[in-house]
Amino acid sequence: MSHTVTLAEARTVIAAATAEAEKIGQPMNIAVVCAGGYLLAFERMENAWLGSVDIAQKKAWTSRAFDIETGTLGTLSQSGDQFFGINASNDGKVMIFAGGVPLLRDGKVIGAIGVSGGLGAQDQAVAEAGAKTIK
Amino acid sequence: MSHTVTLAEARTVIAAATAEAEKIGQPMNIAVVCAGGYLLAFERMENAWLGSVDIAQKKAWTSRAFDIETGTLGTLSQSGDQFFGINASNDGKVMIFAGGVPLLRDGKVIGAIGVSGGLGAQDQAVAEAGAKTIK
Amino acid sequence: MSHTVTLAEARTVIAAATAEAEKIGQPMNIAVVCAGGYLLAFERMENAWLGSVDIAQKKAWTSRAFDIETGTLGTLSQSGDQFFGINASNDGKVMIFAGGVPLLRDGKVIGAIGVSGGLGAQDQAVAEAGAKTIK
Amino acid sequence: MSHTVTLAEARTVIAAATAEAEKIGQPMNIAVVCAGGYLLAFERMENAWLGSVDIAQKKAWTSRAFDIETGTLGTLSQSGDQFFGINASNDGKVMIFAGGVPLLRDGKVIGAIGVSGGLGAQDQAVAEAGAKTIK
Repeated sequence: MSHTVTLAEARTVIAAATAEAEKIGQPMNIAVVCAGGYLLAFERMENAWLGSVDIAQKKAWTSRAFDIETGTLGTLSQSGDQFFGINASNDGKVMIFAGGVPLLRDGKVIGAIGVSGGLGAQDQAVAEAGAKTIK
Repeated sequence: MSHTVTLAEARTVIAAATAEAEKIGQPMNIAVVCAGGYLLAFERMENAWLGSVDIAQKKAWTSRAFDIETGTLGTLSQSGDQFFGINASNDGKVMIFAGGVPLLRDGKVIGAIGVSGGLGAQDQAVAEAGAKTIK
Repeated sequence: MSHTVTLAEARTVIAAATAEAEKIGQPMNIAVVCAGGYLLAFERMENAWLGSVDIAQKKAWTSRAFDIETGTLGTLSQSGDQFFGINASNDGKVMIFAGGVPLLRDGKVIGAIGVSGGLGAQDQAVAEAGAKTIK
Repeated sequence: MSHTVTLAEARTVIAAATAEAEKIGQPMNIAVVCAGGYLLAFERMENAWLGSVDIAQKKAWTSRAFDIETGTLGTLSQSGDQFFGINASNDGKVMIFAGGVPLLRDGKVIGAIGVSGGLGAQDQAVAEAGAKTIK
């Protein structure tokens, strides 16, 4: 069993995420990174926000870089909280709002999915739909 | 009918915005981007803030990149809100305060105007004056 | 009468600011920019913070770029306020805390001083001491 | 007596910090910078967060650049506080949350340690364990 998500798995992750995005009627940018944090696959659905191309990839990176959902990291990073200012690090790659979810196999992080194109709850739902295809 | 704002239309947008800025007595930086988010036309009025040259262009880009007014994006991006931290993305191009307005034709975003040089309400009024010239 | 601060004037500004810093016993970084926002003169006092070399210059730039004291800009740029997020613009050059003060002649901005090395009130006092030497 | 931490001392700092990290069971990234703020030694423990490689180094730099613990700087840099926005300076190198601690000899800053990989209190405890090895 590989310690990183494979390209074949990444395609499945994106397909499941896309299906969820279509179900809720919001076009999304969807990115998958490998265990090293590098981009493995990406798709922008028709009419998805252009500004989210970058955000989706950075949510995936952030989720792998800190082995955490970006929404959870966000709750720790508001003004007055213990990680406030963390997004000044790593050359602007740290995203601190919902839509990045680690991909797990046997309790180990093997990559991550990042979704951007809607409100926070929508991005999160689409990311989770993709992430749960990993066995 | 073109799916992007034309240069001739951009000049009309800027002229209307400038007229509004003169009416309220505040010199402005005014930028128009095409449907792809690239700068199409720009003018800095006499004595307008030098630091707003960059901001006006980025407000226009942001407004097109997320198909939204930058003031509205801003209300979602304060500390504690769902998009807090979004302006760490896209290499610093995301502006989250009033003055960026999409240009619409038949309900479709065909570009955007970005205005910077005064208080938030002033920038917004000038941007709206420009945007409404699009038919 | 020149429309920009001269180098000779900048030296006087820095000397007065340094005297004030010595009086309050806090070493400072002190920068003066011309009407175009470019650095004209700079001095780092013994034992002043290394991280403030950059901040002093950027406070001076910001003060000229928006014709405003950086402390005032800061009050408009907190979370929930109308310019929140402005410091994502201009490639990180916008400083939104006290210590930058425009240099005025006949009510016209001809440059700015930026001071960094102490608490906000200290930086501000030193900047004001320098700025008031301009006639 | 040297006015900067030596490489031999840096190794001792890191060893003590690592021992503390193992004691609390959280893998960490640990960096030591010299009096000039430049990286002297760095280690990433097994399974420590990849995104913290950068943060640990920047915490160390920040701590030296302002002769202050990064946690203390953080309390002055929240929205509404006097240094809010300081982390837009210095090209993103300013970290404003706990884990950076100056290294002191005879009351003089001779370098700094930066730790990242856990919650704020954990990072701080590990940094302090390293810093106190300096005589």
